[in-house]
Amino acid sequence: MENGNSYRHILKWGDKHEESISHHMAEVIKEKFGLPEADFKRKHLPGTEPVKIDKPSMLKPAQLDFFRSVSGAENIMTDDLSRARFSCGKFYGELLDLRFGLVPDPPDGVVAPRTHEEVEKIISYCSDEGIAVVPAGGLSSVTGAVRAPAGGIALDLTKHLNRVLAVNKVNKTVTVQAGIYGPALEEELNRQGYSCGHFPQSFEYSTVGGWVSARGAGQASTGYGKIEDMLVSVRAVTPAGVIATGDFPRTAQGWDIFRLFAGAEGTLGVITEATLHIFNYAPENTASAGFIFRSFEAAVEAMRTIIQAECGKPHLFRISDPDETDIAFRTSGFDGTLADRVLQMLGFKTGSRCLMFVTVEGEKEYTRFVIRKIKRKARAGKGMYIGTTPVRKWLEQRYSSAYLRDPMMDLGIMTDTLETAVTWENLLNVWKAAHDYVARRAKAFMMIHISHVYENGANLYFTFLSPMEKGNERHDFTTFHRGLVETILKHGGSISHHHGVGRVLAPWMEGHLGRSSMELLRAVKKHLDPNNIMNPGGTLGL
Amino acid sequence: MENGNSYRHILKWGDKHEESISHHMAEVIKEKFGLPEADFKRKHLPGTEPVKIDKPSMLKPAQLDFFRSVSGAENIMTDDLSRARFSCGKFYGELLDLRFGLVPDPPDGVVAPRTHEEVEKIISYCSDEGIAVVPAGGLSSVTGAVRAPAGGIALDLTKHLNRVLAVNKVNKTVTVQAGIYGPALEEELNRQGYSCGHFPQSFEYSTVGGWVSARGAGQASTGYGKIEDMLVSVRAVTPAGVIATGDFPRTAQGWDIFRLFAGAEGTLGVITEATLHIFNYAPENTASAGFIFRSFEAAVEAMRTIIQAECGKPHLFRISDPDETDIAFRTSGFDGTLADRVLQMLGFKTGSRCLMFVTVEGEKEYTRFVIRKIKRKARAGKGMYIGTTPVRKWLEQRYSSAYLRDPMMDLGIMTDTLETAVTWENLLNVWKAAHDYVARRAKAFMMIHISHVYENGANLYFTFLSPMEKGNERHDFTTFHRGLVETILKHGGSISHHHGVGRVLAPWMEGHLGRSSMELLRAVKKHLDPNNIMNPGGTLGL
Repeated sequence: MENGNSYRHILKWGDKHEESISHHMAEVIKEKFGLPEADFKRKHLPGTEPVKIDKPSMLKPAQLDFFRSVSGAENIMTDDLSRARFSCGKFYGELLDLRFGLVPDPPDGVVAPRTHEEVEKIISYCSDEGIAVVPAGGLSSVTGAVRAPAGGIALDLTKHLNRVLAVNKVNKTVTVQAGIYGPALEEELNRQGYSCGHFPQSFEYSTVGGWVSARGAGQASTGYGKIEDMLVSVRAVTPAGVIATGDFPRTAQGWDIFRLFAGAEGTLGVITEATLHIFNYAPENTASAGFIFRSFEAAVEAMRTIIQAECGKPHLFRISDPDETDIAFRTSGFDGTLADRVLQMLGFKTGSRCLMFVTVEGEKEYTRFVIRKIKRKARAGKGMYIGTTPVRKWLEQRYSSAYLRDPMMDLGIMTDTLETAVTWENLLNVWKAAHDYVARRAKAFMMIHISHVYENGANLYFTFLSPMEKGNERHDFTTFHRGLVETILKHGGSISHHHGVGRVLAPWMEGHLGRSSMELLRAVKKHLDPNNIMNPGGTLGL
Repeated sequence: MENGNSYRHILKWGDKHEESISHHMAEVIKEKFGLPEADFKRKHLPGTEPVKIDKPSMLKPAQLDFFRSVSGAENIMTDDLSRARFSCGKFYGELLDLRFGLVPDPPDGVVAPRTHEEVEKIISYCSDEGIAVVPAGGLSSVTGAVRAPAGGIALDLTKHLNRVLAVNKVNKTVTVQAGIYGPALEEELNRQGYSCGHFPQSFEYSTVGGWVSARGAGQASTGYGKIEDMLVSVRAVTPAGVIATGDFPRTAQGWDIFRLFAGAEGTLGVITEATLHIFNYAPENTASAGFIFRSFEAAVEAMRTIIQAECGKPHLFRISDPDETDIAFRTSGFDGTLADRVLQMLGFKTGSRCLMFVTVEGEKEYTRFVIRKIKRKARAGKGMYIGTTPVRKWLEQRYSSAYLRDPMMDLGIMTDTLETAVTWENLLNVWKAAHDYVARRAKAFMMIHISHVYENGANLYFTFLSPMEKGNERHDFTTFHRGLVETILKHGGSISHHHGVGRVLAPWMEGHLGRSSMELLRAVKKHLDPNNIMNPGGTLGL
């Protein structure tokens, strides 16, 4: 049982209740990795000890007094548990550290400002004093973007700056404070007949400020766009002053300033407010369809045909590659059923067949029209329609499947995800190269899916599993991870499509973007944050 | 008759053939402004004299030698006509100057580089020597963005850097050199089954580099997006080095560098290549519809309902306000016909009725579906369907209507356009305030339309006409223009939606964006162009 002040309490993703892996999944793992039954009876590196930080808080009494005078004593925390909680996100390497009882990058304290104006005072003061500031939302970063290697303060935006400020039904926009969590935003919007349209897997425990800062993408992004496509304006506090942009739909008044904050990962300032496009909430209109294809290549070709056809777009649009499809079939108990045998006979064979899931949202007749079009095109591309149930089942676990990582790690299994954007032209190259890379490791397994689709390309999302090298867990992971990143980049992928860069992927930024681009990023940073207090210590490779 | 080396040759928009105003239009002008018949027999300030520049070219022999050594002697021009041609765009104030025989801001020479590499050499050299560089495409700027107040060279990108480099059918993108004109691009794309989707009124005489630099919008932008929405990547030469970005559909690797060049108006560097989304070319599928509404308010409400309905989008989507509708009816000879009398009886009265034009492009069944939806919604909003002929007729003159400005000026009529972006909430405010402002001038007339439509707002496009104050033409225009800009900004409009800022609107930048944002623009500029050689002299208010 986890303990409220343990490392495990911090590392555990989800609602902190234990989520165990299913019987089917356990079977798969036993088979793939030859895991002995005994491993299922104990937890590897459970992290159940109480949190203890050796590094003392370096905040001076006068500095603490200042923060207390601005935001109230009850909103300043310097205890070990708070500092540890704000020392990291949910990157695998960070979870491993916590399981080892390590907190390498704690802030010296946590400050929870109550207003935009308090943020202004804090940033101005910290810039003068040279105190590092890490803006913190839901701490769901999987790229090491919310560590505090330079100490200083974590700015907890979720405690107070978490409200919907205005739903504008005429402009179809919502203005929120940056620290609002997904469910609170969506609930209020639904109440008024709208939806935010942004449903990342981290939806339950991530914030609008985090979405924008990391350039997140929701599961229905093919229809609704990524968060930067929904972003209309920002209000941000930087050491060089407040940047507040107008809520025009489009302009031609120089390059867009607000777009600099999409993907800045806290390095330029603190987003305190954002205005976003919103969408009509009409889940009863959603049309969905599942398909199965004989090969990944065929599924990708059908997906590309559909997205380039100019006949309306899906909102959710996914393909699971053969390995992910296999796991989906096995863990759902479908494998070996009569239906499965029929599929195999029809040429939809284990090891090559692929699932495609689609939803279309919007007005009722529109969703019916578009899903009909998609069905026709999928069939023309040799896909077989398999009904809507698989899509519904997938949607039911759309957030909770991420809870599985912790019980996997309890079993001593290394598991992490990477993702990239590719042009259509490079997609199969990157997909194949990544599989080839993982295949070179003994007892390693990788599932890949496409989940965000554009006319010009798509993303690829990689989930890998492999038994940890006991006693060498951290180094083994780092080496393996580095090789996978390099494989992706070498074959034409981007550093990230929607996780962001953080500190984990920062070492590849300059090589990938080029020196001139990197110097430009640094110049923007230098102007807005001359004393380098905003999320310093390597984020984005700045 | 115009002369190939006259001021008139430079100022004339279009194919240099005289375009005279129609009989109907002449009647309207006579009535509105009480213009005597005699004015139609002569030309006011015709600008027919040969071009003569007093200001000598300041390029030193060694500098000229350098340019000749890089790009060949035949690609370096220092004659008066070339210098005058590259001294301005098509802003009304510039045309007036030319008609007065004034060339206030000529470059010292014109250089037409043959390759990207030559641009690199030239920019590097000019940065070292402190020679100003004005990148020039089609010279269609209506904001004073292509003047050379600091002399230096105009970089003619249209002479050599005007090719399609690659059409990528898998990625549905085209990579072009920046100096390619609209028709050349579209012709090659059509040949391969695609369309660029970008048709500004200046299409015939503007270039991809100009579209991107000014953040242009085509007439079908509601469906296809503005040029910045189509932009996938750029290759740009800056004094701080080459910035070349990847052609990923979306990324999360810091903020987007390529987006800084959309709207930079030549102040950051020279875009030499761009990759753009392309679209399926299937004009036979285009569905269109014209509607008439009893009031501007009703038309706007119907437009908003349609664009926010999430049932597919129009590509062309326009409303002409009552004054523009009136002119359209009068100049087409519709006024006073039986059909007109029926419309009036049905309550579609002159002075309040408004035309709405729609096209939907894409797959055949899709365009049929969406146009049906739009018809239903327009009717529900009390619009009357008036067939497709008015839309077709409008499309026939989609580029040539701009040719009218010159014969208007020949009549001594001041005429210019402004445009802005507004949220839906502010649209009627800005529309009304602008009309009220113009109404305060004797013998002034303004037509307004909406032509680029978004879920969160739209643009407003203003065309005004008024007799010039003879003998005080320039000052009178400047004063009147300034008042209109200030009226738009005061009531919630942006500085521009798609014309850009140039030097004409630059004075309003800092007040409108705020000091912090403006300082940020300047910091980016300072980094990329430390010696301030790129389009210097006030562009964007930098």
